[in-house]
Amino acid sequence: MNIIESLNWRYATKRMTGASVPPEKIDTILEAIRLSASSMGLQPYTVLVVSSEKLKQELFEKAIKQPQIKEASHVLIFAAWAKITEAQISEYINHVAEERGVDPETLAGFKNNIVNLVNNRTDEVNFNWAARQAYIALGTGLIAAAAEEVDATPMEGFNPQDVDAVLGLAEMNLRTVVAMPLGYRDEANDFLATAKKVRREKEKLFIQFD
Amino acid sequence: MNIIESLNWRYATKRMTGASVPPEKIDTILEAIRLSASSMGLQPYTVLVVSSEKLKQELFEKAIKQPQIKEASHVLIFAAWAKITEAQISEYINHVAEERGVDPETLAGFKNNIVNLVNNRTDEVNFNWAARQAYIALGTGLIAAAAEEVDATPMEGFNPQDVDAVLGLAEMNLRTVVAMPLGYRDEANDFLATAKKVRREKEKLFIQFD
Repeated sequence: MNIIESLNWRYATKRMTGASVPPEKIDTILEAIRLSASSMGLQPYTVLVVSSEKLKQELFEKAIKQPQIKEASHVLIFAAWAKITEAQISEYINHVAEERGVDPETLAGFKNNIVNLVNNRTDEVNFNWAARQAYIALGTGLIAAAAEEVDATPMEGFNPQDVDAVLGLAEMNLRTVVAMPLGYRDEANDFLATAKKVRREKEKLFIQFD
Repeated sequence: MNIIESLNWRYATKRMTGASVPPEKIDTILEAIRLSASSMGLQPYTVLVVSSEKLKQELFEKAIKQPQIKEASHVLIFAAWAKITEAQISEYINHVAEERGVDPETLAGFKNNIVNLVNNRTDEVNFNWAARQAYIALGTGLIAAAAEEVDATPMEGFNPQDVDAVLGLAEMNLRTVVAMPLGYRDEANDFLATAKKVRREKEKLFIQFD
């Protein structure tokens, strides 16, 4: 499938069969997420990959009371950094320097740009910025899953703090922003499986300035 | 290219050649954006597609002072709805009903869910939510461009209100959130064209709960 076909194939799956997604498909989806773009390359989020049956059950009972959580093979939780610290920025800069074989000092200006940007904003503004970056990764993950013919559902309809509590994210400087269960559609029980995809018409979604 | 290859091929292009991207490639990229997922399917954003040389020059001079804006073939501006109105929600519900051939009344519960969600939050919270949805579309657009071997740069480093002013977005109930010029990399003048892509290592980006 090309990307347009993949996007038409996918939909926000409401019911899944419980079947497992093979590890190599999970690996491909995670690699696509890992390669996603982010502002200044910082990737200020972490992705929790939950395949434990016990933990999926607990997430369902205490945080995200929707059947996909139990019926998914893996539940991805995109969690943005609650606070962005200078240590995290230094780690990033050192990683870039190492990968590109340059002295970290040559990246001092770039580092200062990030530090200044972050330090001039409140934690809440930084968190919302980090959350937006996670949504780029979510968009990437949705297409990558579809390309592998794995179903995925972007999910927001829950209290993020309940997920944080189940997974102990506050202690990890993380705050849940969005969930993405991965699995296989249960066509017989999912009314959306056969529903026509509806999107804003291009004449409305786009405004051309030629 | 498959998606992993496309993601590895792309990078945040800093300099472009000025060459035009053929209309059929632009159409494919826009169609991918149009098919992007969004919370409850609302797509609470509009995408401005700027190919006018005059307007690109004005955007460069008054809002986004980076060379890609002038050197791009098309500049996409993702603008989220500044306020989400009941009229917009009704239009969406009526569109779904029409496309699926059902009475809008059968969607009254779904409509109320959206109205209640939106009305229980401030305009600023709704705007940030709408902006996150636009970032899913941005992520989709970046992959779609790469699959077409068109370069694209996600850009945040500017004052969104300057873009709003150039394009008259406030009067359209829109607020700029992110820009994405489309064009072709100028390898000779772009230091990033040959730089190694650096991403967080999978052992750090992902936490497995098996």
